[in-house]
Amino acid sequence: MLVKLSVEEFSRVLGSNSPAPGGGSVAALSGALGADLVSMVCSLTIGEKGYESFHIELAEALKKAQTLSKSLLKRVDLDAEVFNGVMAAFKMAKETEEDKKSRKEAIQKGFKEAVQSPLGIARECLDVLRLAGKLLGKSNSNALSDLGVASQQAYAGLEGATMNVKINISSIKDEDFISETSSEISILLEEGSRVKNDIYKYVSENIG
Amino acid sequence: MLVKLSVEEFSRVLGSNSPAPGGGSVAALSGALGADLVSMVCSLTIGEKGYESFHIELAEALKKAQTLSKSLLKRVDLDAEVFNGVMAAFKMAKETEEDKKSRKEAIQKGFKEAVQSPLGIARECLDVLRLAGKLLGKSNSNALSDLGVASQQAYAGLEGATMNVKINISSIKDEDFISETSSEISILLEEGSRVKNDIYKYVSENIG
Repeated sequence: MLVKLSVEEFSRVLGSNSPAPGGGSVAALSGALGADLVSMVCSLTIGEKGYESFHIELAEALKKAQTLSKSLLKRVDLDAEVFNGVMAAFKMAKETEEDKKSRKEAIQKGFKEAVQSPLGIARECLDVLRLAGKLLGKSNSNALSDLGVASQQAYAGLEGATMNVKINISSIKDEDFISETSSEISILLEEGSRVKNDIYKYVSENIG
Repeated sequence: MLVKLSVEEFSRVLGSNSPAPGGGSVAALSGALGADLVSMVCSLTIGEKGYESFHIELAEALKKAQTLSKSLLKRVDLDAEVFNGVMAAFKMAKETEEDKKSRKEAIQKGFKEAVQSPLGIARECLDVLRLAGKLLGKSNSNALSDLGVASQQAYAGLEGATMNVKINISSIKDEDFISETSSEISILLEEGSRVKNDIYKYVSENIG
């Protein structure tokens, strides 16, 4: 499992000439790091004077952030596996007509999974952004830059995941699937960009 | 050392109620992941047909990306140590006038280091972005989304690092230091944003 590697080792494997893990796994990890920073900000606020009225909300946000981090870390490995699945389909026999048909179907199935995986990452990165957005004005002001970094990591994960959706969708023949997915990623990116900008504005105005 | 932890463990420690590691270390890690994706893209292009004329340039970019990744990974740990240095200065004795003076000086020294650390991260994240920008049109088109993700990670690292500069600069009294640093981060952000947008545009137009 990739997440069992040391950070240093993960970095080395990522930089190697193997296509997996690649951008999809990095997008998932980026979202997880964003979720962890949200957890940290919640933990550094719960029990602090002046924030008493937000404690229940913060405890809920902490729980959600921890769940999102775990799920996104799983996706670091899942995305690399999905990519290997596509590669395996390409290596299938193509001698007989039946071979060719099975191979073609397996490739299409592989690409759909290779779209679903980063789509799931994008959705959860947006969830992390929404969580971070809800903490504005309700969390420890000493950790305001951490909330900013959380939103940047989650947004980079969201944008990166949508690029992985786009590159894989170009190999899919199912028009309905393409149109539904394309419209979903536009919506995700639009909301994500709005929330990220709101957080950036708040943090910039209130930092220090 | 933080980078010796497994990815999963790093995520857990980050999400805990300890302020270090925090956003600064995450910004450095984000930049390192961007550099690793640049390395991967170079490795997936060197030796590929159609890209022969770029091989020398790609080999140089690969070397630079590997150096940047190593340096940024070191900064993951350094940034956490610098933060602990500031905390240690705050805990110094403040009984006598001399105590108070020493403590004040140590705090100012600590904050200056806490500015230099993310400033170094921001500079290297911009170097990663510049490297990624130079690969447009010269690298394996199957790895175009990875080049996009590389730029997003490096930009998130750059933006995140500058937030850490800003939060720590607010505690510094040296006006010249403040003005020089503020002007440098504006320049870094401006160029970074431009390069990131150029990459996003190119990737979006050429993906698939």
